[in-house]
Amino acid sequence: MSEASPSKTAAGRFFEDFRPGEVIRHATPRTLRAGDASLYSALYGSRFAPQSAETFARTIGYPASPIDDMLAFHVVFGKTVPDVSLNAIANLGYADCRFLKAVYPGDTLSATSEVIGLKENSNRQSGVAYVRSKGLNQRGEIVLDYVRWVMVRKRNVEAASPEAIVPKLPEKVAVGELGLACPPIDRAAFDAALSGSLRMFEDYVAGEKIDHVDGMTVEEAEHMIATRLYQNTAKVHFNQHSEGQGRFGRRLVYGGHVISLARALTFNGLANAFHIAAINGGRHVSPLFAGDTVFAWSQVVETAALPGRDDVGGLRLRTVATKNQPCSNFPDRRGEGYEASVVLDLDYWALIPRRA
Amino acid sequence: MSEASPSKTAAGRFFEDFRPGEVIRHATPRTLRAGDASLYSALYGSRFAPQSAETFARTIGYPASPIDDMLAFHVVFGKTVPDVSLNAIANLGYADCRFLKAVYPGDTLSATSEVIGLKENSNRQSGVAYVRSKGLNQRGEIVLDYVRWVMVRKRNVEAASPEAIVPKLPEKVAVGELGLACPPIDRAAFDAALSGSLRMFEDYVAGEKIDHVDGMTVEEAEHMIATRLYQNTAKVHFNQHSEGQGRFGRRLVYGGHVISLARALTFNGLANAFHIAAINGGRHVSPLFAGDTVFAWSQVVETAALPGRDDVGGLRLRTVATKNQPCSNFPDRRGEGYEASVVLDLDYWALIPRRA
Amino acid sequence: MSEASPSKTAAGRFFEDFRPGEVIRHATPRTLRAGDASLYSALYGSRFAPQSAETFARTIGYPASPIDDMLAFHVVFGKTVPDVSLNAIANLGYADCRFLKAVYPGDTLSATSEVIGLKENSNRQSGVAYVRSKGLNQRGEIVLDYVRWVMVRKRNVEAASPEAIVPKLPEKVAVGELGLACPPIDRAAFDAALSGSLRMFEDYVAGEKIDHVDGMTVEEAEHMIATRLYQNTAKVHFNQHSEGQGRFGRRLVYGGHVISLARALTFNGLANAFHIAAINGGRHVSPLFAGDTVFAWSQVVETAALPGRDDVGGLRLRTVATKNQPCSNFPDRRGEGYEASVVLDLDYWALIPRRA
Repeated sequence: MSEASPSKTAAGRFFEDFRPGEVIRHATPRTLRAGDASLYSALYGSRFAPQSAETFARTIGYPASPIDDMLAFHVVFGKTVPDVSLNAIANLGYADCRFLKAVYPGDTLSATSEVIGLKENSNRQSGVAYVRSKGLNQRGEIVLDYVRWVMVRKRNVEAASPEAIVPKLPEKVAVGELGLACPPIDRAAFDAALSGSLRMFEDYVAGEKIDHVDGMTVEEAEHMIATRLYQNTAKVHFNQHSEGQGRFGRRLVYGGHVISLARALTFNGLANAFHIAAINGGRHVSPLFAGDTVFAWSQVVETAALPGRDDVGGLRLRTVATKNQPCSNFPDRRGEGYEASVVLDLDYWALIPRRA
Repeated sequence: MSEASPSKTAAGRFFEDFRPGEVIRHATPRTLRAGDASLYSALYGSRFAPQSAETFARTIGYPASPIDDMLAFHVVFGKTVPDVSLNAIANLGYADCRFLKAVYPGDTLSATSEVIGLKENSNRQSGVAYVRSKGLNQRGEIVLDYVRWVMVRKRNVEAASPEAIVPKLPEKVAVGELGLACPPIDRAAFDAALSGSLRMFEDYVAGEKIDHVDGMTVEEAEHMIATRLYQNTAKVHFNQHSEGQGRFGRRLVYGGHVISLARALTFNGLANAFHIAAINGGRHVSPLFAGDTVFAWSQVVETAALPGRDDVGGLRLRTVATKNQPCSNFPDRRGEGYEASVVLDLDYWALIPRRA
Repeated sequence: MSEASPSKTAAGRFFEDFRPGEVIRHATPRTLRAGDASLYSALYGSRFAPQSAETFARTIGYPASPIDDMLAFHVVFGKTVPDVSLNAIANLGYADCRFLKAVYPGDTLSATSEVIGLKENSNRQSGVAYVRSKGLNQRGEIVLDYVRWVMVRKRNVEAASPEAIVPKLPEKVAVGELGLACPPIDRAAFDAALSGSLRMFEDYVAGEKIDHVDGMTVEEAEHMIATRLYQNTAKVHFNQHSEGQGRFGRRLVYGGHVISLARALTFNGLANAFHIAAINGGRHVSPLFAGDTVFAWSQVVETAALPGRDDVGGLRLRTVATKNQPCSNFPDRRGEGYEASVVLDLDYWALIPRRA
């Protein structure tokens, strides 16, 4: 035959294809190597010491220099895209993201997602799907676990709507769940000259705001290289031919790229907050495009001792990233929304050594 | 002395410098490492499972996750450029390319080329040189072997023309020569959820066409980073100062970059065709430039059982890549030439598991 | 409290913050891996054989393929930026840079700087600080050592000026200090077909000039990826929002990126000069911007036997890089300054095998 076989290509799930309780095993497992860590460094300029230096990591208690938390997150997230969000209209949010196991070069990550909620929109054109995604290493251990919800098109607006199930999500990850991916840290061995800052857990107080000062301009080649590194196939990031005819006329930068840029910028002010232990929630407030310059500031929402641990404490942070707007005035929410420059509002827990 | 010494720089061979039967040992050997595989992933977003995950590769029978076939090809090709095609007017074609040995991180590739044909053009300004190039690993084993022919300038149009020798090249690589670089595959262990598709050898039939749907826009930084990764020094890819004054006014994207982009796009429709076993021929129909968006479609030319193997079968594929033109209508040859959007027409054998 | 805490962010040293004799330990140590070498290859297209191939390196006497000298230099340099040159008006020069120990994948580099000179400018707005920086590996061995001097703003123009101390710097590194980072080379095993040139030490004579012919155009994504790879945080390279309002209206390419581009271009003419043993001095004559095409030529300033070594000799080279100007006419100094196209004038010692 000489017919086209569109059925061989992945169409992705439409809203009516999601089944409550369904567990999806995603393609393609990915081995993370030192070369991926090198590329991640080169894309964001991250300088947190344990991820940068084998020696520093081992001295404070890691068995090896760990893979950056967000690199592991992006790789797991990327795997879920073809099954969960290929037909997404919008990525609405994340919650309850917990980093449970450190990832090291040589580990192979795979991913699964469970459908935990479904709610059709009143216009019946689309609905919201909630999935709990897990990243697993080659031993089947869960390295991270998070919920996200996306608005997905219906293939057929006449399709029957499922009974609405909206999962109850925690406003924040509980303190008792933090730190599983972080080995006991030898505080006395944590060399503050090498880590880049004398500021430890005790130096941060709830409410304080930190302007991270620096700005980073994004190029098309950079965000596409990053997003392919994560094997994230969402076409809005890559295809200028179709995006040029779309709403923005341009390729959209992957939201995770913005998170990693903001995280790297926070080094200036939070140099010792070396590990992201959990993401409580995140909003991509407005789109970022190549040519934009990203700035960031953070607010310490709360500080928390970790039960049973005196080596590290938790800083609950809101990091707000802007485009083309330095953050000395801390651009933030305004009314129902945000000041126009804001692109990201991320609420997360970072761990930082306690003073020895 | 304070004179210039132009003789210290490589001038490359002109047509009259090629001697029939001459074997050229090329500089520079190159060790391929996991970091090169990471970069290759990030440049193309390739997702074929054995190349992506150590676990998947070992489970199905590889001793380790292999280097992508086209990365090995590009590195070997790059070595031949300073000796074979520095003065080329055009790269006219490839044929009889066979992948003979898998390449793994840590392997060092070097290359040789034998001059197997020469034919002066009737205008006496240039001629066509045919070379058989071999890529060798650090044990001297041939990992790949191919013929290419290039049109090369004469240094001196008065130079005597050699007797024309035009090698007889196979229209396609014979089925019996396929699969030497592919270990026996444990079909039962080939997990189709992880590989990304349920479609195996038996699901493809001669004549069928597959639109790979997705598009990828190319940036200057990307194709230059790729081409330097391959140590390919052809100046048309790198030097805007001279190319800006040339025929196109712009840098040309290396043809191999287009092949790798097209190959990565074919994942959507050919996810289990994990190994390129041979390239029967290839034509770079028109040039690609930064800013262009590449799309691709493939036709199954024939399917073939491999003698003595029941683990994998061969799909002979034509993958046609276009620029700035989605492929739902399968843009193809037209009259003597091609539809304007077509940039690549590649005829090759890929291996895919047979149903267990 | 909900106050801003600017004090948590690094302000960098102003002129009056430098203390003579002060030794600064810099953040952040960085493990160099094979992935960094892959990226370095992809950014510059370097082809020197020992750095390219494990086999070639081991055959001639290295225990493993070494990290490119300039990659090690840039990483050490990058660490010094937050402490030394964050408030620099200009990077005035380097001198007495000696490569003392080869760096291999897996080595972790850290850096220290000693303040060895201070001289306030007559306008009292700024001053020149001289530092001797050392790069150390994980065993505390010094891998490279160099002096640089920068013009730094004063925070407070009323601050008292220190007594001027201007260190005496050698015009060139002495021949007896060359070669410590280069193991004994087995000249008979140095395969000139694989290295890319038959030209050895004896083929170069003082005074001769070599046009390296090729040109390389620089993209924003490339120089930013490189500069972040080195964890160099100087904001002029990254922040279009602020630089767009600055003197040039654009991001400046890191001077070290220009050095590495020029070094890669010198392969064509100096293919066997595989190791930079010392940098005598360097001037970034004018700024480079994305879109510019870099060309280079070199002059052999002198040739020198190395005491006690008959395996390699030293070539003292001046490599001059230009922008948007091929170097067949060897653009050079003119009057007090330079021809307009010149961007770099680098004086260094490279080692090259002696004829066996």
